[in-house]
Amino acid sequence: MSGEKGGIEIHRGLKGVYFDRSPTCFIDGRAGELRYRGYSIHDLARHSTFEETACLLLEGELPDAAGIENFRARLRAARELPGAIYDIIRSIAHAHPMEVLRTAVSALGAFDPEGADNSREATCRKGVRLAAQVPMIVAAHDNIRKGRKPVPARPDLGHAANFLHMLKGEAPSEDAARLMDVDMLLHAEHGSNASSFAARVVTGTEANLHASLTAAVAALSGPAHGGAAENVMRMAQEVAEPANAAAYVKAKRRRREPIMGFGHRVYRAEDPRARHMREGVERLSREMGQPHWFDILQALVDAMAPYARHGIHVNVDFYAGVVYYLNGISEDLFVPIFAIGRVPGWTVQVLEQLDQNILIRPLTHYTGPAPRDYVPIDRR
Amino acid sequence: MSGEKGGIEIHRGLKGVYFDRSPTCFIDGRAGELRYRGYSIHDLARHSTFEETACLLLEGELPDAAGIENFRARLRAARELPGAIYDIIRSIAHAHPMEVLRTAVSALGAFDPEGADNSREATCRKGVRLAAQVPMIVAAHDNIRKGRKPVPARPDLGHAANFLHMLKGEAPSEDAARLMDVDMLLHAEHGSNASSFAARVVTGTEANLHASLTAAVAALSGPAHGGAAENVMRMAQEVAEPANAAAYVKAKRRRREPIMGFGHRVYRAEDPRARHMREGVERLSREMGQPHWFDILQALVDAMAPYARHGIHVNVDFYAGVVYYLNGISEDLFVPIFAIGRVPGWTVQVLEQLDQNILIRPLTHYTGPAPRDYVPIDRR
Repeated sequence: MSGEKGGIEIHRGLKGVYFDRSPTCFIDGRAGELRYRGYSIHDLARHSTFEETACLLLEGELPDAAGIENFRARLRAARELPGAIYDIIRSIAHAHPMEVLRTAVSALGAFDPEGADNSREATCRKGVRLAAQVPMIVAAHDNIRKGRKPVPARPDLGHAANFLHMLKGEAPSEDAARLMDVDMLLHAEHGSNASSFAARVVTGTEANLHASLTAAVAALSGPAHGGAAENVMRMAQEVAEPANAAAYVKAKRRRREPIMGFGHRVYRAEDPRARHMREGVERLSREMGQPHWFDILQALVDAMAPYARHGIHVNVDFYAGVVYYLNGISEDLFVPIFAIGRVPGWTVQVLEQLDQNILIRPLTHYTGPAPRDYVPIDRR
Repeated sequence: MSGEKGGIEIHRGLKGVYFDRSPTCFIDGRAGELRYRGYSIHDLARHSTFEETACLLLEGELPDAAGIENFRARLRAARELPGAIYDIIRSIAHAHPMEVLRTAVSALGAFDPEGADNSREATCRKGVRLAAQVPMIVAAHDNIRKGRKPVPARPDLGHAANFLHMLKGEAPSEDAARLMDVDMLLHAEHGSNASSFAARVVTGTEANLHASLTAAVAALSGPAHGGAAENVMRMAQEVAEPANAAAYVKAKRRRREPIMGFGHRVYRAEDPRARHMREGVERLSREMGQPHWFDILQALVDAMAPYARHGIHVNVDFYAGVVYYLNGISEDLFVPIFAIGRVPGWTVQVLEQLDQNILIRPLTHYTGPAPRDYVPIDRR
């Protein structure tokens, strides 16, 4: 996709271009490896929690017992939204949840006590507050648009369980809460993906965290970034049974259309996050007596096997959408849930950008008309 | 700022990196040249209008008489805001105008009849609607926060004159309207600046125009991008009289602090847009019996002359802030006015991105801890 023209190299999509250093997220796309601060995503998915992982991302090290209790307490304390935010959500309740989230995150900048303070410390505190507020916005909007009242947060529940509680009006099972917890943890950070990069571009102008995270939500709303999870479930419904998968894939490839949930800009092997959501789908779909969903997904993976040698593998979205569906979560909340998980990653990217800030301003190569004289309108 | 480390070249700030081609805006930073679609910014500033220039940017050619009349009619027709937007503005009326603008542009996505349509045609229509709506948001907010009612748009006025009318509650003089018109035209487009680039990053995920322009407003809110104009006026007030300029500059340079309104990532010569605002400041400040503002600015330019050989020259913000001040416009509206001018440029950049869309996702080079084993909390 890069090309040389008149001696100028064009890096379309900035593919392969390094724009900064980062000590947070290691991704080996060929090997299918992902590590946060040196810890394998597999270890974190098996042993850690969203809160602990968020703490690791923001502070650099796994917290000790006092550290995690302090972090959880900060999250709990931030579980509140100004009344004006509920009013704004109501006034655009008909909109897509990502539009509502983007608008509410933007508006929250007007209420944060440290809104304009761009110091590392204040930005980190704002990031923790937003981590607590973003799930409240998503849940409140879903309740409001369904004619229900927003469900107050429960201080005794963890981050993922409290979100499910606010969304459904009842505390989730331990299993459901743990699966959501793992899902959020898996989504917590992923290097300079488009939404984090958008956040960094905004931070580069010395705008504040709310500006940067508004841009991040805006970027995540695009189907080429956050959108795949909601389309995978539609695809699974369209395929309807495992025996149809091969023909479905064949027809799609013939029309040169992408298969949802396959392929990733960075991974040329299986997205390492996919494994943990696959296990979740398998367990959940059997427990709920709907094993065909897992079987359909497996059949799609089998049908896509020939493309694996071109580096096209399942990504994390492939399974995540079905987990949400089995949890009875509306399809258009799949991307907002991705956003809930990603708040710590966005925040840490903004902190890194702030540490050694620079305006991010690449160039475009001019290919338009040669210089020409202005012509008055009566002679055009 | 780029550096080689372990064989990997890091392009900090993406300085000098070309990420795409563009037929719209030509900038020669060394020569101090700026052209829109081949037309010199000087010709446009002298002979064109904001509406004509917006039309040129969006459609590629200067319009004929019917074309410009049609374009003006479309802008006029779009001069309305849903009631919910006024409510949102009221609910965060205490916030910085850029936060209000960002939130309102985001919320407008929920009301645009073609909100989710990413075709070139629909995106262009949405861009025209936003060009009409953005000044309404800025003016409505300023009135609301000052305890006044929003002033309805006047269909018989041009874009700049109508904005001043909505802002002040009375039609501006022809001179004042023309100076605002030129200001908006000069700000209409400027290649892949940080806000346009943020918009393109968001478009790269296939998000819609409202998402992209929300991110653009977010990026413009940072002082390193849009913020200089409001600081120049503060500086002029601090300097207080021309004789103090040299000592002011000396003290600032000694403390290694930047002088507001000087220097630009791209220009190593004088920002070609500055000339037209300088003429405006000179005329306006004499007409209004406050010639000292122009004299202070001129003394600052003289004091900065030694830095010109390092490529540090006045930029467009240097004079713009004083024009707004002399027009009695609140300081914190200087950046929103930049935004009003830039809507066509943002829209055209989004259109270009859509034409041959690609996810914009550069890389960060990992510099964090080596792989390490997860340690259970009781052993930390």
